[in-house]
Amino acid sequence: MSLIGPTPLTTHKRLPQRGSHDRELVHSILDEGLVCHVAFVADGQPFVIPTIYARLGERLYLHGATASRMLAALKLGAPVCVEVTLVDGLVLARSAFHHSMNYRSVMVFGVAQESVDLSEKRQALEAIVEHVVPGRMRETRAPSAQEVAGTRVLWIPILEASAKVRTGPPVDDEEDHALPHWAGELPLRMVLGAPVADPRLAAETPLPASLAGYRRTRESR
Amino acid sequence: MSLIGPTPLTTHKRLPQRGSHDRELVHSILDEGLVCHVAFVADGQPFVIPTIYARLGERLYLHGATASRMLAALKLGAPVCVEVTLVDGLVLARSAFHHSMNYRSVMVFGVAQESVDLSEKRQALEAIVEHVVPGRMRETRAPSAQEVAGTRVLWIPILEASAKVRTGPPVDDEEDHALPHWAGELPLRMVLGAPVADPRLAAETPLPASLAGYRRTRESR
Repeated sequence: MSLIGPTPLTTHKRLPQRGSHDRELVHSILDEGLVCHVAFVADGQPFVIPTIYARLGERLYLHGATASRMLAALKLGAPVCVEVTLVDGLVLARSAFHHSMNYRSVMVFGVAQESVDLSEKRQALEAIVEHVVPGRMRETRAPSAQEVAGTRVLWIPILEASAKVRTGPPVDDEEDHALPHWAGELPLRMVLGAPVADPRLAAETPLPASLAGYRRTRESR
Repeated sequence: MSLIGPTPLTTHKRLPQRGSHDRELVHSILDEGLVCHVAFVADGQPFVIPTIYARLGERLYLHGATASRMLAALKLGAPVCVEVTLVDGLVLARSAFHHSMNYRSVMVFGVAQESVDLSEKRQALEAIVEHVVPGRMRETRAPSAQEVAGTRVLWIPILEASAKVRTGPPVDDEEDHALPHWAGELPLRMVLGAPVADPRLAAETPLPASLAGYRRTRESR
């Protein structure tokens, strides 16, 4: 597999100092994200659909029902753009103009291919479950052959890709530092609330091991 | 202003029972979201870009530098799709196949128009700051005339739009209820970490009032 970038599509035009084509960084952002946004064109109209996914090596796997409009469009070889955004925090400046956000994001461009091999499809579907809740596959009924066959699995090569990252404090104009306003970073993170058992769950069923210490942020995984 | 939907673009093809064209619901999801994903086509290639935004009435406002590729493409009258996703929780089923996610999402289709009136631009820019941190405009230096003039502001009418919502427990196959696996919902929410003051902030500067009780989730706003 070749380098991730830069190409005409993945050259950062705005704020290039925030851009990167580091493969490890691209992979780490994809691995930490929960939902990706998939953009495609159908009849000249752009669509963007949120969906879960998983990375396996240099492939980004998507799945869905065979009736899915998105998967049908992608299956026809349409160009696709997949984006993952991790919002790390709000950046409050002394001036409204210099307010910003700390984030890590990845954009992947490519053309989707369909997985038809049943064992590859199974591996991808299990990876998607594990991507959302690591360790969950051991605690659940595995997909049946019929379920695997009835699910469409597509993948996009993670080759033409780029990352963009902002970190750190606000950057105010020099003369604004004399203003009395608070300025700094407000870290944001996604946390789990208290689990809500299925109403039909047997009362003595223990919480699954996969939930112990579950976090979606890099610091704790 | 006319109804939000349904139209050919906003008719829910997949899982229509999760779909809605209720204007209040669409607005409430847009108001709770932090980042939207904007899809557009340039030279046949789809792009999806995350950005902050604000709703004012029936308009969704975007802003950015005049050099932005996205804003330049939208300014040319290209069709656009704007999507906001709120991830409310993970849904763990007894079977891998029936794992799901609870979410609220909105999709808006349209063509962007540019705001050129300076007072309308100022109102939109201030609304974007307030969308991210309600009450913040009172605690910060307002945009100068030059800052307003140097920022591009576009808006999309919130007319052709739809919402999609999943709530509640997993839906397992009847025969899987006998399995010993835990099943239920794992609520997810975004929380603020401890504020990190700008290194150049004067030591006695108090935390801003806008941060007291700041939350991004519906329950607490």
